Amino acid sequence: MLTLQHSFALLPLTLALGLTSVSGHAENTSLTAKESDPQTLGWRQGFPPPKGKLITQPQSDFFSFPKLRWTVCHIRELMPTTEVSRGIGAPSKLDYALDKNIDAITFTPTNSKRPMTWRQSLDANYTDGIMILHHGKVVYERQNGCLNELGNHAAMSMTKSMTGLLAEILVTEGKLDDKALVASIIPELAKSGFGDATVRQVMDMTTALDYSEDYADPDADIWKYSEAASPLPKPKGYSGPNGYFEYLQTVPKKGEHGVEFNYRTINSDALGWIISRTTGKAIDDLLSERIWQKIGAEQSAYMTVDAKGTPFAGGGISAGLHDMARIGSLMLNKGEMNGERLFPTAVVDNIEAGGDKGAFAKAGYKQLNNGSYKSMWWLFNNPTPIYAARGVHGQTVYVDPAADMVIVRFSSYPEASNGKIDPTSLPAYKAVANYLIKK
Amino acid sequence: MLTLQHSFALLPLTLALGLTSVSGHAENTSLTAKESDPQTLGWRQGFPPPKGKLITQPQSDFFSFPKLRWTVCHIRELMPTTEVSRGIGAPSKLDYALDKNIDAITFTPTNSKRPMTWRQSLDANYTDGIMILHHGKVVYERQNGCLNELGNHAAMSMTKSMTGLLAEILVTEGKLDDKALVASIIPELAKSGFGDATVRQVMDMTTALDYSEDYADPDADIWKYSEAASPLPKPKGYSGPNGYFEYLQTVPKKGEHGVEFNYRTINSDALGWIISRTTGKAIDDLLSERIWQKIGAEQSAYMTVDAKGTPFAGGGISAGLHDMARIGSLMLNKGEMNGERLFPTAVVDNIEAGGDKGAFAKAGYKQLNNGSYKSMWWLFNNPTPIYAARGVHGQTVYVDPAADMVIVRFSSYPEASNGKIDPTSLPAYKAVANYLIKK
Repeated sequence: MLTLQHSFALLPLTLALGLTSVSGHAENTSLTAKESDPQTLGWRQGFPPPKGKLITQPQSDFFSFPKLRWTVCHIRELMPTTEVSRGIGAPSKLDYALDKNIDAITFTPTNSKRPMTWRQSLDANYTDGIMILHHGKVVYERQNGCLNELGNHAAMSMTKSMTGLLAEILVTEGKLDDKALVASIIPELAKSGFGDATVRQVMDMTTALDYSEDYADPDADIWKYSEAASPLPKPKGYSGPNGYFEYLQTVPKKGEHGVEFNYRTINSDALGWIISRTTGKAIDDLLSERIWQKIGAEQSAYMTVDAKGTPFAGGGISAGLHDMARIGSLMLNKGEMNGERLFPTAVVDNIEAGGDKGAFAKAGYKQLNNGSYKSMWWLFNNPTPIYAARGVHGQTVYVDPAADMVIVRFSSYPEASNGKIDPTSLPAYKAVANYLIKK
Repeated sequence: MLTLQHSFALLPLTLALGLTSVSGHAENTSLTAKESDPQTLGWRQGFPPPKGKLITQPQSDFFSFPKLRWTVCHIRELMPTTEVSRGIGAPSKLDYALDKNIDAITFTPTNSKRPMTWRQSLDANYTDGIMILHHGKVVYERQNGCLNELGNHAAMSMTKSMTGLLAEILVTEGKLDDKALVASIIPELAKSGFGDATVRQVMDMTTALDYSEDYADPDADIWKYSEAASPLPKPKGYSGPNGYFEYLQTVPKKGEHGVEFNYRTINSDALGWIISRTTGKAIDDLLSERIWQKIGAEQSAYMTVDAKGTPFAGGGISAGLHDMARIGSLMLNKGEMNGERLFPTAVVDNIEAGGDKGAFAKAGYKQLNNGSYKSMWWLFNNPTPIYAARGVHGQTVYVDPAADMVIVRFSSYPEASNGKIDPTSLPAYKAVANYLIKK
């Protein structure tokens, strides 16, 4: 029997669903990237794999390090998923102009005085796949760990940025009014905390909700959310909400909307609902139609689903590294891809303009000081706009238009919080940008 | 809680796993193909879908008709799966020379005296997708119901033919000895009924096993097999085998190997194990490397898995119609595809030569009189070789080399047994072949 309720056994599932930004189990963080390589550790290898090398649902805490390093490439083998189809045409060609000097670029981590090379930073961050595009060409690529060119990797909360992008497209195209109240679009949410928030407040996560992600509290809302969202059969006697849509209706309001940024995944799921109600299409289908089928993707992506088939708009995507690089290019080129315009330039202009810095500051992200959050993209503190999709354990699509550079990274850092990963990655990205600009 | 044990609630899962060749629930067989179209019935449509339109795991018997007609295109949304990657190259081009006269071709069903047209036969068989290739060109195609060109459809027991093909390739290449005893390759099976069977007897399903697929018997082995194979967490207190490999070790011998054909899915799973132990590769990976990446597939296929990640070699594949047509072409061209030889011609020669007709006759398939089963392909009674991959509810890849014709069909007939579908399909295939030969 599944005894998920208020149980720590749920944490892995929660993490697998990409819900959290807090640190996960990291009992074994003493293992280096090389030592924890899933090939080396032999997870699920052999016919059958030996007992100690199994990774299964739900007992084996598959999202704990070092198992995590296998799991991020194999989500679909552990739970139901839905395809984000690439279509059936030929993939677009990626142009390569590899630059071997990048490995030796040095930078100083923000939490250290000792310089580090770009190459060293990859292992420091347990990088599974990384790609740098400059002037539209791939200047750097590396795939290792669980990842290869035929693999998909969990995008975690980068999913939110895809959902936010779809919403921003609809707003720009006049199909969705970002000033409308949520209740006017989703009457079922009228009595919830979302009801009198505007679509824009949901998009920028400035909703005021009574919702706790305190993992130390067995009664925290995150547990109920996870249980509602689980695609596995509910435990006997379970009478709570089933699925994202039912759960969202239970979230009360707390405070005033529009005042404070609070990073809560439920906003992305509410936005997914708004998008689907507006367009009549599920997020996976819309993402396929508007993005994946249009960018010349090499691989179909996929999304986890709840028990009713609702794709997880807040964290469910797994995708290929090359295709996430194509997404980065699409953003850098403000909606143009392979000579075709997929959406108006205003979509990216709106994101680049950033969100409410005052509201963002209240959330207290020290390393993202003077940043903001707009349409589910993170804006950094910089004279020119730099923005990123970000997911726990080190996922990013980092776009620096002034440097004409995109960096895409999949990784499986032992701890979830990007606060641990940013010190050796954000300054590394800047150093690479400086090198490429001067090149 | 999951109460799978000895429960009828298991049947849907069993069927979803493609295990059975008996008839499923068909309470509503009075609904025609048009009336039971999943679009018309609105399964899982809406955000959220209305209560009566949900299809979920495991309560809603998702493999009963008419829900079945939705489920066959959505297996991955209900359970964990593993990808059979198409690779990242461009798909091969399918040449079209559509022939509008085919719809009007008439034939007489074997269970009726009233002639029927080809077009009528499609609805009679609840066809979701059908393609006819002649002289290498697509002369007929139709996709409807739950299927479209971006969709995948459950291949059911056609999976066995893919597993059998891989085995035949390995045998022909000298990598697997079909005269070897199973125990010499899989020592874990030494004490089971498989132990002293030859690989060939497993490939041709002439093993003698104490194994019952009597669905009326709550103690039938099929239930234990299904429970072991389920990718969902096991019920509390479950102490039986977990996964295909553990289950196979529990099957005793009954009778003499090599004497009688008995269609038992467990042979395909044993063969999958033999293949993986021999090659060091899981079936999904090998199928990708040897077939899917080589045929210019448009879509990756996928396979269901057990809780340990073992792909279901006996029935787990879902794939696109076009790609199954490419498989048919590959067989027709005896291993050559797009100018490349994927395996020796002897592989198909061996299959075309057929299996032991005497052993086959003992199984008493009336409509397949004088047929046989070789390397998990069905051979029909015909002066020239005609063979097919077949799966419950009407799946087929039908290869008629003399007519230079391949017919591929995905369907969702209300009942599982092909015995119900053959009367309006096998004579239809013959009629089309006769038409094309004379054309």
